[in-house]
Amino acid sequence: MRLDLNSDLGEGFGIWRLGDDEALLDVVTSANVACGFHAGDPATMRRVCQAAARSGVAVGAQVSYRDLAGFGRRFIDADPAELADEVLYQIGALSACARAAGTEVRYVKPHGALYNAVVHHEAQAAAVVAGVRAFGELPVLGLPGSRLLAAAEAAGLPAVQEAFADRGYTPEGTLVPRSQPGALLTSTAEVVDRAVRLAERGQIVAVDGSVLASQARSLCLHGDTPGAVAHAIAVRSALTEAGVTLSAFA
Amino acid sequence: MRLDLNSDLGEGFGIWRLGDDEALLDVVTSANVACGFHAGDPATMRRVCQAAARSGVAVGAQVSYRDLAGFGRRFIDADPAELADEVLYQIGALSACARAAGTEVRYVKPHGALYNAVVHHEAQAAAVVAGVRAFGELPVLGLPGSRLLAAAEAAGLPAVQEAFADRGYTPEGTLVPRSQPGALLTSTAEVVDRAVRLAERGQIVAVDGSVLASQARSLCLHGDTPGAVAHAIAVRSALTEAGVTLSAFA
Amino acid sequence: MRLDLNSDLGEGFGIWRLGDDEALLDVVTSANVACGFHAGDPATMRRVCQAAARSGVAVGAQVSYRDLAGFGRRFIDADPAELADEVLYQIGALSACARAAGTEVRYVKPHGALYNAVVHHEAQAAAVVAGVRAFGELPVLGLPGSRLLAAAEAAGLPAVQEAFADRGYTPEGTLVPRSQPGALLTSTAEVVDRAVRLAERGQIVAVDGSVLASQARSLCLHGDTPGAVAHAIAVRSALTEAGVTLSAFA
Amino acid sequence: MRLDLNSDLGEGFGIWRLGDDEALLDVVTSANVACGFHAGDPATMRRVCQAAARSGVAVGAQVSYRDLAGFGRRFIDADPAELADEVLYQIGALSACARAAGTEVRYVKPHGALYNAVVHHEAQAAAVVAGVRAFGELPVLGLPGSRLLAAAEAAGLPAVQEAFADRGYTPEGTLVPRSQPGALLTSTAEVVDRAVRLAERGQIVAVDGSVLASQARSLCLHGDTPGAVAHAIAVRSALTEAGVTLSAFA
Repeated sequence: MRLDLNSDLGEGFGIWRLGDDEALLDVVTSANVACGFHAGDPATMRRVCQAAARSGVAVGAQVSYRDLAGFGRRFIDADPAELADEVLYQIGALSACARAAGTEVRYVKPHGALYNAVVHHEAQAAAVVAGVRAFGELPVLGLPGSRLLAAAEAAGLPAVQEAFADRGYTPEGTLVPRSQPGALLTSTAEVVDRAVRLAERGQIVAVDGSVLASQARSLCLHGDTPGAVAHAIAVRSALTEAGVTLSAFA
Repeated sequence: MRLDLNSDLGEGFGIWRLGDDEALLDVVTSANVACGFHAGDPATMRRVCQAAARSGVAVGAQVSYRDLAGFGRRFIDADPAELADEVLYQIGALSACARAAGTEVRYVKPHGALYNAVVHHEAQAAAVVAGVRAFGELPVLGLPGSRLLAAAEAAGLPAVQEAFADRGYTPEGTLVPRSQPGALLTSTAEVVDRAVRLAERGQIVAVDGSVLASQARSLCLHGDTPGAVAHAIAVRSALTEAGVTLSAFA
Repeated sequence: MRLDLNSDLGEGFGIWRLGDDEALLDVVTSANVACGFHAGDPATMRRVCQAAARSGVAVGAQVSYRDLAGFGRRFIDADPAELADEVLYQIGALSACARAAGTEVRYVKPHGALYNAVVHHEAQAAAVVAGVRAFGELPVLGLPGSRLLAAAEAAGLPAVQEAFADRGYTPEGTLVPRSQPGALLTSTAEVVDRAVRLAERGQIVAVDGSVLASQARSLCLHGDTPGAVAHAIAVRSALTEAGVTLSAFA
Repeated sequence: MRLDLNSDLGEGFGIWRLGDDEALLDVVTSANVACGFHAGDPATMRRVCQAAARSGVAVGAQVSYRDLAGFGRRFIDADPAELADEVLYQIGALSACARAAGTEVRYVKPHGALYNAVVHHEAQAAAVVAGVRAFGELPVLGLPGSRLLAAAEAAGLPAVQEAFADRGYTPEGTLVPRSQPGALLTSTAEVVDRAVRLAERGQIVAVDGSVLASQARSLCLHGDTPGAVAHAIAVRSALTEAGVTLSAFA
């Protein structure tokens, strides 16, 4: 009974802030730190790395398309070779911040539209993995069944599956689209049940009540709304009470 | 009789190119590679690092203010703490590209307006050095007598002086301002004499004919005009004929 | 007894927000709208212009150095000719948004470090005015005694003085530096007194109690903290009760 | 016998240059001026507008996705409402530059990946047209049969078809994909024949020799290679000799 909790951190830019980094650092065991392409300036990156190091939270590189204006949430038909180099650049920049803070980049997770693209987009999935490998043998965190994790495995990188604390699952194990009912778990009880059941039994209950087996070693928590932070805190507390060991996968 | 030849490389961005990287890589022993803040996208950075590795040219991080629109040539009154983090970020990003190319970042040199600022601006000079030290014990390349080199020395980093192949010097050893006569050496003979005399005798002849002692271990060559590239090629050829060993200082 | 109230609006970018635009639009008579160089994306600009048009608030172009990362708060030693063109570009972009919303850009006010620079920096002050004139005969809003307003007057543009609701004034009429005691008025009573006295008598009370004459036709309100918004609301309410007509100067 | 010649101009950024604006301004009758999103800084925009005004060349807004790093050549899945505002912003910015130069923005043409997207992408085509209409009743220049021109017509905007001087056409009237033989006309004779035949008879000869009727009122010339500029000059010369009136469509 062991689980990693991951969340996006350091997603401000310059004067702007987003999310509650301080609260989340008390909850998660892995921090997906923005690397400057969709959010995250150097000062923020270094500060988050320092706070993560103090809290014993693992630092991961949350790599993205280069798109501050769109927060990395818009698909960009990037050239795969260039995308690989952009991934490498971002990991390198974060790595310097992490090392200066006495820690290391321990894994890589794509952000936003890139995360969604590499579920199916073979060339971009391969590009992300190529960028990671050009940096080193880091684990890749992603969606079970994605091209990304397949490419990571094929390249000899640890491919780590994650589940979502607050998203509805279809009986087939995919996420319920946001446009459909059940896409989001809104009650704290549901979110907490999801987390505890995953940690204790490796199971996820789908929207129709069917039970899915899951090999997810990490649970993704959101923190961009006050409600999401409250859920994250409740999840941590419930897992701890249930005797689950919370520790970074990487 | 040993000298390093350094020049700025990889100063394109996206579709745009600047200078003749290929020609310069056959001339220099140290490449000041743009890191994305005044020029230099990830694909260019990686390509230049690969070419430098193939040619046995040392890779240095040419760090800059964040100013693509101004090519880093405009003073920015950046907060020193943020500037240090921006320097760290740039070195880290280039370091990843260099290591993927089988080489390393061997030194750091500020670019453009930042180079000029840290001659006198104590807080920004300290910030650049703080950014370098946060990354590691890299040498800093700069102007003799600058606050930058003083700060580097005080911080225990190797402080390496450079001279300019094509700039006029005052009898006091400073550069003749570009607005005054003699600011630029324009004949190939003058540029070649500068280089050979520096390598052989550690001397620079000022605009009034007086002879200055120089401890510069590196000579900066420009490559952003066809004439400058021709000068650079002539300098290398003359130094080789004179029996000077050309090798990276770092 | 007539006064304009101005405040900065539309200072988010992409996903990020700053300040409480909705609350301020109920308070001010003039909105300094960010034009994309320090903040403000096209969608935000258009939305703020539409809301200003609905509320009968005058739209002004809050022009800035190109510096999203620094929020326009860092001096940039920009070439004056380029700065003039950047000012022209920003006004033009906002003008299109304003016209699409059924209103017009009615004035121009520099932002942040540019605002501070053009108090003394003659070349940049002239550049801002040149950019405004290249667009059209718009009034320029700025600090009394600044090079900016002198240049605007010399160029035949209306030069409109503003005062600050929450800043301390020296007996000489300049702002108390932020590093010194009295730089900020913190109580609502002080801020309200400042506004009412200015509107009724054209007077500002300095930190030593001396009384300064002011020709300010506009009062600048801040809105980037909850306290600032509360002050702004209190100012409007007090001025209305005092029988002051609140209307845009432009 | 009347034809417009259009080409992309002002596609540098900051220190970087692309293409030969001066040569093209002697050739074309319409200049598609980059507006800062894929290329084009304010100083370049104003300078190109001034040169176009002097040469009697019509200024058009070459609007793009926001993508300097990718030169606007990568599809971005932009939100249509935001894309419309970005188009409006770009036209407004260029309009200010054009008016300062004594001319006006006379038409709008999408650039690069956006040009290609709005051939088929209905929502983005409608967004571009919405952005144009929000600015005013400007003609839209595009590919015959595109969603863009259909949307422009439906919105009551003049929809102007263009043909390409140096691209091969299929018998169906579409462009031969760049990956296939015949995609590019490489001889000057072919390019000149294309231009003259279009002007004199409204015809385009496809790769298989079949003859297509064309209503194109404008011919697009490229200028980003020395060969392309030579072709453009030859086209103008041949059209003039053939008695074709060269004039802007707008």
